[in-house]
Amino acid sequence: MENAFASFTAPFTASGRAALVPPPPWHYAGWLLNVAIACDTSASASLVPPALGRLTGSGCIHFADWQATTDGRELLDPIYAQYRETIIIVEIELPDGSLANFCPFIWVDQDISLIRGLLQGWPKKFGATSMTRSLPIDHLAAAPLQAGTKLGASLCVKDRRLVEAALELTGNPGRPLGFLANRTIGSVGWPDLTRPGEPPHLRWLLPDIRDKVASQWHEATALVRTFEHPVEELSLLGELRAQTASVGWIGITVAGAREAAL
Amino acid sequence: MENAFASFTAPFTASGRAALVPPPPWHYAGWLLNVAIACDTSASASLVPPALGRLTGSGCIHFADWQATTDGRELLDPIYAQYRETIIIVEIELPDGSLANFCPFIWVDQDISLIRGLLQGWPKKFGATSMTRSLPIDHLAAAPLQAGTKLGASLCVKDRRLVEAALELTGNPGRPLGFLANRTIGSVGWPDLTRPGEPPHLRWLLPDIRDKVASQWHEATALVRTFEHPVEELSLLGELRAQTASVGWIGITVAGAREAAL
Amino acid sequence: MENAFASFTAPFTASGRAALVPPPPWHYAGWLLNVAIACDTSASASLVPPALGRLTGSGCIHFADWQATTDGRELLDPIYAQYRETIIIVEIELPDGSLANFCPFIWVDQDISLIRGLLQGWPKKFGATSMTRSLPIDHLAAAPLQAGTKLGASLCVKDRRLVEAALELTGNPGRPLGFLANRTIGSVGWPDLTRPGEPPHLRWLLPDIRDKVASQWHEATALVRTFEHPVEELSLLGELRAQTASVGWIGITVAGAREAAL
Amino acid sequence: MENAFASFTAPFTASGRAALVPPPPWHYAGWLLNVAIACDTSASASLVPPALGRLTGSGCIHFADWQATTDGRELLDPIYAQYRETIIIVEIELPDGSLANFCPFIWVDQDISLIRGLLQGWPKKFGATSMTRSLPIDHLAAAPLQAGTKLGASLCVKDRRLVEAALELTGNPGRPLGFLANRTIGSVGWPDLTRPGEPPHLRWLLPDIRDKVASQWHEATALVRTFEHPVEELSLLGELRAQTASVGWIGITVAGAREAAL
Repeated sequence: MENAFASFTAPFTASGRAALVPPPPWHYAGWLLNVAIACDTSASASLVPPALGRLTGSGCIHFADWQATTDGRELLDPIYAQYRETIIIVEIELPDGSLANFCPFIWVDQDISLIRGLLQGWPKKFGATSMTRSLPIDHLAAAPLQAGTKLGASLCVKDRRLVEAALELTGNPGRPLGFLANRTIGSVGWPDLTRPGEPPHLRWLLPDIRDKVASQWHEATALVRTFEHPVEELSLLGELRAQTASVGWIGITVAGAREAAL
Repeated sequence: MENAFASFTAPFTASGRAALVPPPPWHYAGWLLNVAIACDTSASASLVPPALGRLTGSGCIHFADWQATTDGRELLDPIYAQYRETIIIVEIELPDGSLANFCPFIWVDQDISLIRGLLQGWPKKFGATSMTRSLPIDHLAAAPLQAGTKLGASLCVKDRRLVEAALELTGNPGRPLGFLANRTIGSVGWPDLTRPGEPPHLRWLLPDIRDKVASQWHEATALVRTFEHPVEELSLLGELRAQTASVGWIGITVAGAREAAL
Repeated sequence: MENAFASFTAPFTASGRAALVPPPPWHYAGWLLNVAIACDTSASASLVPPALGRLTGSGCIHFADWQATTDGRELLDPIYAQYRETIIIVEIELPDGSLANFCPFIWVDQDISLIRGLLQGWPKKFGATSMTRSLPIDHLAAAPLQAGTKLGASLCVKDRRLVEAALELTGNPGRPLGFLANRTIGSVGWPDLTRPGEPPHLRWLLPDIRDKVASQWHEATALVRTFEHPVEELSLLGELRAQTASVGWIGITVAGAREAAL
Repeated sequence: MENAFASFTAPFTASGRAALVPPPPWHYAGWLLNVAIACDTSASASLVPPALGRLTGSGCIHFADWQATTDGRELLDPIYAQYRETIIIVEIELPDGSLANFCPFIWVDQDISLIRGLLQGWPKKFGATSMTRSLPIDHLAAAPLQAGTKLGASLCVKDRRLVEAALELTGNPGRPLGFLANRTIGSVGWPDLTRPGEPPHLRWLLPDIRDKVASQWHEATALVRTFEHPVEELSLLGELRAQTASVGWIGITVAGAREAAL
């Protein structure tokens, strides 16, 4: 049955005005705390689909405070624009030997971003991220961008803390890490309730990225701590050992996606 | 590419433990305030896909306080079990002349229910529902099930009140209304980001319902008020005129779905 | 300076309409899970003010899902009426040798209840309580009041789980426990910012309770688990060992308070 | 009865570790949207206590995204540090003819700030503030500090929008407005439940401010819209007519308070 309605996602109406997610392009700008990690690879086959290869043991945790818009309207009604999320990125070696990023877990605090992420292959669920912001003033509460400033971040999933990080700025320039430094392959799939016993067919997508800009990155040292959780499977990565870290701002526009050639 | 992983929904892991939504059966039990409404039909073609026919001018608003579980485990960790939602039901006349229910709009406050609903064709977005509960004691704050008791309900979507209702129990038995009284056809569709300009193909599903039980229903009179909203399209139904109402408890199990024969 | 304004609490206006807390009487009705506990008494002097004596080693954790109103208006706009809280009750032996209850810690999820509680001497802070509800239908998701039904409860404070409990109904009648079974002395005090180095003078209050009604109580066995927290001091009570438990509904009206004669 | 415990606010323990509010100094840094307003003065006597004089018809709405700390520890666990609020400031002419600010209404989204505010005489209740942030990058979603950038802000109280504002940067330097430009007198009072029929005695406090720093202010034009509310009394100020506006960052430390000499 053809769909004569304009909605990109539910609810489906002729105008599409009420659709939870408008079609791309999606413009994002955010404040990010990035912590490069080393992780165990022994559970690689439990996390990385065979088509995507295997864990290398490198990765990144991003804590992100986003502002997103389609045509600018959400910036005037910012409850539609803002959300925070914690992103786990693992580096994978694809079957052809090349390296890419893969996101096994990600938690966000807004419905629009949840669905927009699932459509791109970010496996979003709800979680509450807190993260220190850096303000451009010199005050004890402002966490300015200078050597010695300390920043924290944490994630709570279903009323349990799952991850926390403590950063300290070194005063040196930092590097883009994690999804900021290499392509990230997404996994998209929707189960069909008429076959309730079958997991969904999965597709692998790469985003069509435009207009990527970043501020200078600021280097930090970091400590990461994770906690047991009865539902989450972050422990498949073993102990997460922080390597280096960086903080800064990024802007990025996603116009769509293409199939990843594997 | 075949999916060797067990997850019914993202995130996709070998065990499926972290999946946001486990596979059905899904067991639900809830406290419901049901308000039968008359609505305008002039915007029928903006709300009801051509394949599903047209609005009859009848419908129902349900305010629901749910508790849901798969195998019982969520009842021991109730942050996984509980959520509230406001459900707009319209009656439609299908092309074959038969009557059915259709849900153009629904708002919920939990991620699990959001995705579980979208898979069934309930077009869920986030919204905050408040609703008076009736407690089985005789006290001024308990809203007991007796003539003269008043109960209220409201829905807030993105920080704006969208619907509110005031009910008063008559002391008479009530009737099941809305989705409690007839089958409800769901519309399922997921856009494909590799074709970002196209709305999704839609399918029409009917739930496979088992183990449906209800308490006695208690009749109420009701008033409904709706408010303008810059994004929501509830105003396509015109003024919602409350007809009758009922309150009570229902239990229902959904085991999957089948295509609606249209 | 005399206060010509009617507000019982801030904000202070002539009409008092916007005051966060209207004056009593305050009518409450709620669903409660009560878990009697044994606790350590070695930190008694860190928790119980000298004027109030000492811990006996008995206590109770209440998980409560409340509905409160002043003159009935909040029941028609239930976002003003409903909240949940977790209440720690310890039994104390007063200097005169009599027994009473004392609440060292309590966490709630609504601003109105927070201030109303502080005025009565309940030391409320924000925390998120989840608790299974029992619905009067026979369904897997309904947790009906019968032997073998399992119910859970949990408390999260600043994104960390602090307490969780698992109950199983025995099918036998239960008892009122904790604050349901004896008077509870409250501690009220407000610091004065013109003397920022001084803790507040404390007063001991007993509530003026009227119209107390309860449903039958249903006995349960229980397990309790507590977790470390960097700010909360629940660990001063040592390991909390569940003794017996009960569930049911209570209605209570508070008309004011009087000084506790110590 | 003397209080041997260290807690500045409830809960009261020997160590004071769990107290909701630690004693000052309190260090704040935040991102502010300030909209100078003209308002009606006809309801002056309903809002301004006689001791404080009368409304002049000028005022300001501040939307603030704060980060606060005592000794730095909250910056490493930012769920303790961050909150947002909407502040209504009115200018008053004191009985001696001098001008001051007074805050009749303010809404915040965190328990710590709620109590800390009440102690200073800010009449805080819960409300949800959303506000566009400006990020130091050139991207469509970043709202950079340059002419033509649009920013929005809104306040929701008990699930109803109460205020919204739309700003557009002019590219010119802006001015400190509202509480940033003059002293603000606070009103502190706590009712006594042993006399439940009496509103509290009120005191007037001025904060002891130290270490006040600000970024450059950026001028904006603004539109403000307010909405009816069944509980809030913002409508006592009549139509709020935006005059000018500014955005920027501020840091401020409060060490205590003193009585306002009236």
